[in-house]
Amino acid sequence: MIDNKSIDKKPLVAFANKERDRFETALRQFVDIPTVSADESRLPDIRRCAELAASTIRDFGGEADVLETDGNPIVHGRFNSGNNLPTVTVYNHLDVQPASRETEPWTSDPFVFTKQGDRYLGRGTTDDKGPALTALFGIRAAREAGVNANMHLLWELEEEIGSPSFDGAMKKYGKQLATDSVLVSDTIWVSRKRPACPAALRGLQGFELILETAATDQHSGVTGGAARNPIGELMKLVSEMYDATTGKVKIKGFYDDVEQPSRKELADFRASGFTVKDFKKDHGFKSIRTEDADDVMKRIWAMPTFEVHGLVGGYTGPGIKTIIPPRATAKISCRLVPNQDPKKLMKLVREFVKQRNPDVKVVAEASMLPYKAPTTGPLADAVRSSMKFAFGREPVFVREGGSIGAIVSMEKVLKVPVLFLGLSLPEHGYHAPNENYDWQQASGGMVAFAKYFDEIANL
Amino acid sequence: MIDNKSIDKKPLVAFANKERDRFETALRQFVDIPTVSADESRLPDIRRCAELAASTIRDFGGEADVLETDGNPIVHGRFNSGNNLPTVTVYNHLDVQPASRETEPWTSDPFVFTKQGDRYLGRGTTDDKGPALTALFGIRAAREAGVNANMHLLWELEEEIGSPSFDGAMKKYGKQLATDSVLVSDTIWVSRKRPACPAALRGLQGFELILETAATDQHSGVTGGAARNPIGELMKLVSEMYDATTGKVKIKGFYDDVEQPSRKELADFRASGFTVKDFKKDHGFKSIRTEDADDVMKRIWAMPTFEVHGLVGGYTGPGIKTIIPPRATAKISCRLVPNQDPKKLMKLVREFVKQRNPDVKVVAEASMLPYKAPTTGPLADAVRSSMKFAFGREPVFVREGGSIGAIVSMEKVLKVPVLFLGLSLPEHGYHAPNENYDWQQASGGMVAFAKYFDEIANL
Repeated sequence: MIDNKSIDKKPLVAFANKERDRFETALRQFVDIPTVSADESRLPDIRRCAELAASTIRDFGGEADVLETDGNPIVHGRFNSGNNLPTVTVYNHLDVQPASRETEPWTSDPFVFTKQGDRYLGRGTTDDKGPALTALFGIRAAREAGVNANMHLLWELEEEIGSPSFDGAMKKYGKQLATDSVLVSDTIWVSRKRPACPAALRGLQGFELILETAATDQHSGVTGGAARNPIGELMKLVSEMYDATTGKVKIKGFYDDVEQPSRKELADFRASGFTVKDFKKDHGFKSIRTEDADDVMKRIWAMPTFEVHGLVGGYTGPGIKTIIPPRATAKISCRLVPNQDPKKLMKLVREFVKQRNPDVKVVAEASMLPYKAPTTGPLADAVRSSMKFAFGREPVFVREGGSIGAIVSMEKVLKVPVLFLGLSLPEHGYHAPNENYDWQQASGGMVAFAKYFDEIANL
Repeated sequence: MIDNKSIDKKPLVAFANKERDRFETALRQFVDIPTVSADESRLPDIRRCAELAASTIRDFGGEADVLETDGNPIVHGRFNSGNNLPTVTVYNHLDVQPASRETEPWTSDPFVFTKQGDRYLGRGTTDDKGPALTALFGIRAAREAGVNANMHLLWELEEEIGSPSFDGAMKKYGKQLATDSVLVSDTIWVSRKRPACPAALRGLQGFELILETAATDQHSGVTGGAARNPIGELMKLVSEMYDATTGKVKIKGFYDDVEQPSRKELADFRASGFTVKDFKKDHGFKSIRTEDADDVMKRIWAMPTFEVHGLVGGYTGPGIKTIIPPRATAKISCRLVPNQDPKKLMKLVREFVKQRNPDVKVVAEASMLPYKAPTTGPLADAVRSSMKFAFGREPVFVREGGSIGAIVSMEKVLKVPVLFLGLSLPEHGYHAPNENYDWQQASGGMVAFAKYFDEIANL
């Protein structure tokens, strides 16, 4: 019988401090490669980073494969201890958002790793190269502490463009990627004061409403009054679909399947450190739909939305051109919460449109299922205890308002639970100029990962 | 006492036939100059055409000035017979709409005059170079017939871009342009079967609704539900302002000042040859708001409108981009009918917006007063009898749904009545490919103008 005594914190903290130089050197190597997945000219950098990732994993004593997909490659790393031991896979991504010192207020070159005391500046430091390397060092710490588990890494390189090849790759390499659970490390705490993990992600269903009433631009003097105006009719239809002031969707059945957050979840929301003031400041809002913090958190994390992204058609140059356009398209999407089904939403939308304006064509766009993570059971408890172990406080389980298609793919294809252990902070500037990561989150994260692996090993 | 016996038709018709070659040669010269006022690179052509116009008038025995304005010049021609005689000014324009054989289905070069039997093809043949030269030849016919009146020509060169310098030019040259009445020859019959004259023009008031709720694009996952959506709110506001299905404006007081068309006017509408079938076919409509001919005519000629021309803001590229835009602008205009006041409309709109969504900024754009032409009295009777004299049927007095700013300027600044004697037909393709004019309308027009001048001389 193996002695499953839990590991101590002290040697893990000592490991992090001992390894700090090596961590910073590795992070510098990764950040200095501009892996902007939205920029096709960066494909050689994407490739170079995948090779660097594989060789880094091998340097750490693991096995690594660069898996080809229909798009950018995926890096799969394995630190195996035995076939009969539990396997856990940590998901991160190594591609980054675009950045430009010319058009954005960066104080340093976004693609040159810059150390300022405990702070590491550069595109990808916090999203998501820093957390990826933190997980790798966490594996190393766990192995030095004698943790007996198979610890895998799954590093994607097209997350920032919506993971278009990820689902296909899961299906193609499913056997090879087999694991018992996934831990995603690509999320943000609500406040530095309190660790936070997502309990759920919203899904998404996009669609277009298209109306064509003529062949060419019409003169509003010559035909105005008799001519239909497709922009006006789409505005009316959208306004029948939702009240833009309150955000309330008026399509019958829209809210039927919404799983309301539990009392426990709402308590966690409140304990997250969220404030309306910071939310407005962080996003530069002049005003929002409500000033009540509970209401805001429910709206952005736990309720579905209806959003008009744009309207195509007509005249959009300077001043007024008095045409009646022959056609218009409204671009719309709904964020969906757990238990809502994008397919059902499309059905409701089609029925609604057919009743209100049957000439309007409905075209379905991007679709992602909502995701609900386990917040009870041994894996969720392992997240809780490892976060508390590393950062001194249990995490709150809040929700993520966005959608990560890769997560549903992993859950559906690999058929395993997907949990979250994120390390980024609001002040790290996700997708923003002067993106940064810090040693406190990195070293704490190494300890948290090591502890999580230990918890898994002891299940 | 002068012998004011009316002129005969026969010599006028003989004049037209005798002058046909000369008319076609002149029209060729004018059409071959591409006076596209919307294209700044055509300014030398505009200038060349103004000089050609002045020299042509002088060749006909008139005096001519090229008057400088803040924009394109205006050509003023005068055939004077005596200070104590009545003066009538015929307004036309010599600038034209753009045209392209590459992107439009022209069967001949739009800027090369092409004769096909009795038909003259080319940009500007019917709008408005053909009618302008028809008036010039009408003056010549009247003079040969011994008509005693001062017959003037006012030829503008920026009508197709909304006459931006015309009002200023009227104020600058008002004394020089003094006249007793104006006859505008730039309108279209409803059908070849029946001459038609506008009894009124609609006015116009454009405005923008602008809403800004944040500073930058927001992620609909991260902030969606709490964030305000300026596109959605503008769609709601517009839908509160009018019902796009019926076209009915819901702003309180909007219809208060509308002068309903008289029973006589409605009878004229019905006698105009208008059919819904032709209207839909001519404009390429799949469907319109009503299939009732009386209703369509009232809507396009005699009722005010509310039209959304475009919405600026958000994402308009391919597919869906799940942003919440920080700002949006709706571009709107209303056509106004006689007795409505653009200033009052702006006041109603501002009050409405203030009540419904006070964060929305209202910016007034282009404004034109509606115009009501005399349909009774000696001048209107002169139009009636000259049209009947030339074309065998009295004209119907319908209304023009569009707005011609120059007309209100002439009425207000020159302080004279403005009447209409148009010669274009629906099949001439105003603003369309294969624009054309024909000898029947040209020769009939010469007779009609000569008769009109005679009627004026005999008043």
